[in-house]
Amino acid sequence: MKKVKVGIIGAGRIGKLHAENLVRIPQVEIKAISDIFTDKVKPWAEGLGIPKVTRDFEEILSDPEIEAVFVCSSTNSHVPVITKAAQAGKHIFCEKPINFDLEQTQQALEAVQKYDVKLQIGFNRRFDHNFKRVREMVEENKIGDVHIIKITSRDPEAPPSDYIKVSGGIFIDMSIHDFDIARFLSGSDVEEVYVQGAVLVDPVFAEHEDIDTAIITLKFKNGAIGVIDNSRKAVYGYDQRVEVFGSKGCVTVKNDFPNTAELTTDDGVYTDKPKYFFLERYQEAYIEETKAFIESVAGDKEVPVNGNDGLQAELIAHAAKKSFDEKRPVKISEFIKDTVSR
Amino acid sequence: MKKVKVGIIGAGRIGKLHAENLVRIPQVEIKAISDIFTDKVKPWAEGLGIPKVTRDFEEILSDPEIEAVFVCSSTNSHVPVITKAAQAGKHIFCEKPINFDLEQTQQALEAVQKYDVKLQIGFNRRFDHNFKRVREMVEENKIGDVHIIKITSRDPEAPPSDYIKVSGGIFIDMSIHDFDIARFLSGSDVEEVYVQGAVLVDPVFAEHEDIDTAIITLKFKNGAIGVIDNSRKAVYGYDQRVEVFGSKGCVTVKNDFPNTAELTTDDGVYTDKPKYFFLERYQEAYIEETKAFIESVAGDKEVPVNGNDGLQAELIAHAAKKSFDEKRPVKISEFIKDTVSR
Amino acid sequence: MKKVKVGIIGAGRIGKLHAENLVRIPQVEIKAISDIFTDKVKPWAEGLGIPKVTRDFEEILSDPEIEAVFVCSSTNSHVPVITKAAQAGKHIFCEKPINFDLEQTQQALEAVQKYDVKLQIGFNRRFDHNFKRVREMVEENKIGDVHIIKITSRDPEAPPSDYIKVSGGIFIDMSIHDFDIARFLSGSDVEEVYVQGAVLVDPVFAEHEDIDTAIITLKFKNGAIGVIDNSRKAVYGYDQRVEVFGSKGCVTVKNDFPNTAELTTDDGVYTDKPKYFFLERYQEAYIEETKAFIESVAGDKEVPVNGNDGLQAELIAHAAKKSFDEKRPVKISEFIKDTVSR
Amino acid sequence: MKKVKVGIIGAGRIGKLHAENLVRIPQVEIKAISDIFTDKVKPWAEGLGIPKVTRDFEEILSDPEIEAVFVCSSTNSHVPVITKAAQAGKHIFCEKPINFDLEQTQQALEAVQKYDVKLQIGFNRRFDHNFKRVREMVEENKIGDVHIIKITSRDPEAPPSDYIKVSGGIFIDMSIHDFDIARFLSGSDVEEVYVQGAVLVDPVFAEHEDIDTAIITLKFKNGAIGVIDNSRKAVYGYDQRVEVFGSKGCVTVKNDFPNTAELTTDDGVYTDKPKYFFLERYQEAYIEETKAFIESVAGDKEVPVNGNDGLQAELIAHAAKKSFDEKRPVKISEFIKDTVSR
Repeated sequence: MKKVKVGIIGAGRIGKLHAENLVRIPQVEIKAISDIFTDKVKPWAEGLGIPKVTRDFEEILSDPEIEAVFVCSSTNSHVPVITKAAQAGKHIFCEKPINFDLEQTQQALEAVQKYDVKLQIGFNRRFDHNFKRVREMVEENKIGDVHIIKITSRDPEAPPSDYIKVSGGIFIDMSIHDFDIARFLSGSDVEEVYVQGAVLVDPVFAEHEDIDTAIITLKFKNGAIGVIDNSRKAVYGYDQRVEVFGSKGCVTVKNDFPNTAELTTDDGVYTDKPKYFFLERYQEAYIEETKAFIESVAGDKEVPVNGNDGLQAELIAHAAKKSFDEKRPVKISEFIKDTVSR
Repeated sequence: MKKVKVGIIGAGRIGKLHAENLVRIPQVEIKAISDIFTDKVKPWAEGLGIPKVTRDFEEILSDPEIEAVFVCSSTNSHVPVITKAAQAGKHIFCEKPINFDLEQTQQALEAVQKYDVKLQIGFNRRFDHNFKRVREMVEENKIGDVHIIKITSRDPEAPPSDYIKVSGGIFIDMSIHDFDIARFLSGSDVEEVYVQGAVLVDPVFAEHEDIDTAIITLKFKNGAIGVIDNSRKAVYGYDQRVEVFGSKGCVTVKNDFPNTAELTTDDGVYTDKPKYFFLERYQEAYIEETKAFIESVAGDKEVPVNGNDGLQAELIAHAAKKSFDEKRPVKISEFIKDTVSR
Repeated sequence: MKKVKVGIIGAGRIGKLHAENLVRIPQVEIKAISDIFTDKVKPWAEGLGIPKVTRDFEEILSDPEIEAVFVCSSTNSHVPVITKAAQAGKHIFCEKPINFDLEQTQQALEAVQKYDVKLQIGFNRRFDHNFKRVREMVEENKIGDVHIIKITSRDPEAPPSDYIKVSGGIFIDMSIHDFDIARFLSGSDVEEVYVQGAVLVDPVFAEHEDIDTAIITLKFKNGAIGVIDNSRKAVYGYDQRVEVFGSKGCVTVKNDFPNTAELTTDDGVYTDKPKYFFLERYQEAYIEETKAFIESVAGDKEVPVNGNDGLQAELIAHAAKKSFDEKRPVKISEFIKDTVSR
Repeated sequence: MKKVKVGIIGAGRIGKLHAENLVRIPQVEIKAISDIFTDKVKPWAEGLGIPKVTRDFEEILSDPEIEAVFVCSSTNSHVPVITKAAQAGKHIFCEKPINFDLEQTQQALEAVQKYDVKLQIGFNRRFDHNFKRVREMVEENKIGDVHIIKITSRDPEAPPSDYIKVSGGIFIDMSIHDFDIARFLSGSDVEEVYVQGAVLVDPVFAEHEDIDTAIITLKFKNGAIGVIDNSRKAVYGYDQRVEVFGSKGCVTVKNDFPNTAELTTDDGVYTDKPKYFFLERYQEAYIEETKAFIESVAGDKEVPVNGNDGLQAELIAHAAKKSFDEKRPVKISEFIKDTVSR
């Protein structure tokens, strides 16, 4: 078995998470990781057995042995890094979103196409045991034609004000995962979006011209309709449920819980609250998405979530923003000139 | 204990249902029932011990012993019957909607106000053990400030084409119950409505310029936002669930099932499907709403669901229709000139 | 439709319950009720439209129009009442147990057989929507051959000391229902019993040479094995669950709850506790058992729970008592001389 | 951080499982593994980075750097290996049971005590997220005094005939885990056992004088009573549930499932079956038990499951066997002469 040699660009929380998952995959060898804070990163990298830590990501791209890179740096660096990595012939795993600007996203996708490398976007939820099972049931025609898709997606706590400021807003920062899941479950692109939003959790969102609570209606190209409800703060933990209703039935998934213990007393029935946040809930999904990427690279197969999936989710996010700003339903076609797909 | 003497106007399915529930309330005496098909009704009425069956509802109104009437005739007769009953000083229980036309509804409410009688609208779901418990939890501040309300309301099968034609459309015929529950659970009136609708169940709905599937977004006056999803056909039975999410938590109710049996085999886990339709699911709620009305009459107390509740739900239904027709969010204020409340 | 005319013997809690259910069955006419406290009973009987209240149950037996009687008097009167009712040619519905003494029970069954009347025993749980569904699944061979039966049966609170004294002990007073359900679900008689019991709830049980907590192991004639766990006090309400495990799968039933509301907060997930006691839980089952008896009488069909079912449950109760007293497994055959079945 | 250097004795399924878990614990270094099939084991050991594979386990014991050993060889080798390891001053993790013979088990415990080494028994279920949560609730007095403990423990399929022959029988091979969980949850030793058993799954069990289905009643020293039901074959997967009922309430745990997807169709509600077997269900528990052992060794703390826990479970198993053979309740004291505890 030939090992896939990889480099990781960016050693923040998500870069470290991917590295720790990758070292457990026998088929993978992490050759290098780049980060501007090399001093902080070195002891951790040594513990994992990563031989090289560099400040300059281009050193990773110039290593001819490295086949694939994980782009885990800040969003504004994604497009230049993807472009250079593609030029260097590296396959790319990139966190979402590709970019806040649609034109730049398309430029990155063009580079990927031109240099014929693979690009997988970090929509980890597609690999979740629950959502994957829903998709299977839809594909196996268990619910017939899809009529309604419902997604509940609520975070356990709002990010700090500093983060909100640079997040790009709720739609491209948070709802983008739900837009991807909506496309994944329906098997269809989205045609139109309408948003009813509000600032109910914390007035700080209003200061950044952002909202914290939203109900987003979707119209799909295949005729189905859908709704996403988002909140930046569910005090009880991470709320991640979906429902797909169709002509032959309905499939739902509930949250995951840390245990199944149920205590019944004179006061009623009590169980623990759901798993706290994405690290707990999507622990396995993060492992699965990197495995799938490595298998695509090693076996020269299609990646399961490609650049077009990244672009489509960003298109919906932009339409959602416009819908909220202009208080009207907005068609995706208002944003599309000439999209690239790969 | 003084008995409350009542008359019933209309002996269709719902008139009969109310009669059969009323005979079990010791405090009630049904003196008469009116229907145009007296021959059909008589044997059934005798079995229940109702002494008089008449073709002419005015005979009921002119009986001085009768204190209260149940208006269970067709929707187009509601306004004249309410008006005459109010003039005759009878308290009134009327099925929903009061009328398809907002002006006529308001005329009926003016008569009720003028003659100072009670009017209760047949929003039976407020008396359901599940929805009532959710409302209690909201009132007890268990979930804090209300942020999001979600209502799933799906019928097990579409009505026949003849009924669709005269139903007034999905919003005033079916969603109207959900509009009332939305107001009940939030404790707030609705400010704005947006509808994303489709014909996915049966093309016959399109023939009657109606739809069979809808996602309805609501903005409440208290700042909360909400969403209702409706379908005319859930093959698995009556789907009646709600969720209220707030600053301190979330309360949900699931469907009711005929039993709790769970069969686990090599194929998976199996349970029976939910209760079939409103007669099974809301059996107790129908009894509770008539008891509440009788208590209001006997004790001269406020009715729990009054004429304004009927009007508000109709206003939302009209706004929903306009939103669907004009493909835009519609404010309730576009419809209000001078509403009457009682 | 010919009406079945019935008399009720005993107007305590259970006699009143049956009467109130019977008045709602159109096919039934209650002609008389007997009780030693006629003054207390009269106003209630009038309210229900029962024309005659008597101190002497023999007046009921001598009424030639009365076809069937409900024996709801104290346990020690059951055998003489059944015997006289049988002699008078009345069909009999009798509460459990028939008697504390096996020989007397058999004498009653002999009278029933000799005078060829029907006798139904008040094992209401067989008519419960949950247990009935389990039995259906067993009969439909959904779980294959039955290997293990588990019954959890716990009361919400212990009866008063006065009652414990005359109850006959936990096995014949409380577990007897579970013995019947065990036979019902397995479709088999019981061969052997072993009891591990304790006084854990209240020392008053020890004063009456009784226990309040028990684990009862059963060996069935068809080879299956089973276990019942009983407690006189579950602080959270009536705990009534069963499980049948077999070669092809397992079916379980959970408790019934007053609603499906689920509140999730920072503290965890909360739901209301189960229905409180038998009046709430078995409300429908009591109605169904009387309907079934009336149908058997009217249609001259077999009753669904006959005298032998009463006797078998009593045999198991006696074996359980002996097992607890002698600290050893006890065979039912130790008690059987010549049982009568009808 | 000083590393704990360990050796593994036996590279069968469970030895490999522990090794694969241990390599992920940064504090551990596996120095050697012994097995009679060195050729088969070598490639796997290299992949994991284990430097030495030997046929002779004494080479592991003679390595002065190795602090602790995992005894994963066949049951009949446990006592000599434990004895020699104790003499060599190694801390010991040993799979259950220590031995089929109580006297030999006690000899091993005496060696452990004499040479003052730690001994942890592989009762992995104590580390399961569900059972651990139940124990916490019992310890936090959420359910008050413990009255009843119920354990359901069923395997998805019977082992092969060759295994049954040398397994020591259902009680010491399978139920032993449940005996330990019963002690763990109740916080009490067991006083008396009664077994009702049968051969219902496969007649091959009878050929080996074994059974495949059992209901085991337990009496605890603290007054509580309990019941375990075992089956060698639940076609739907691994069935691992417990319930503890007490004066203040009841706590139950359900099985774990691979996902939360619930499909509702015209046929009913369907979910996938439980996780298949111990490798899926107790995956995390195996990791947790090794972590706990390593922490005990590194920090010189008490092990969470010690030799006495192993002995007590074996005592119950022997009493269960005798109860089944002699068809009577058997006291644990019939087996105890002078037990050693450490």
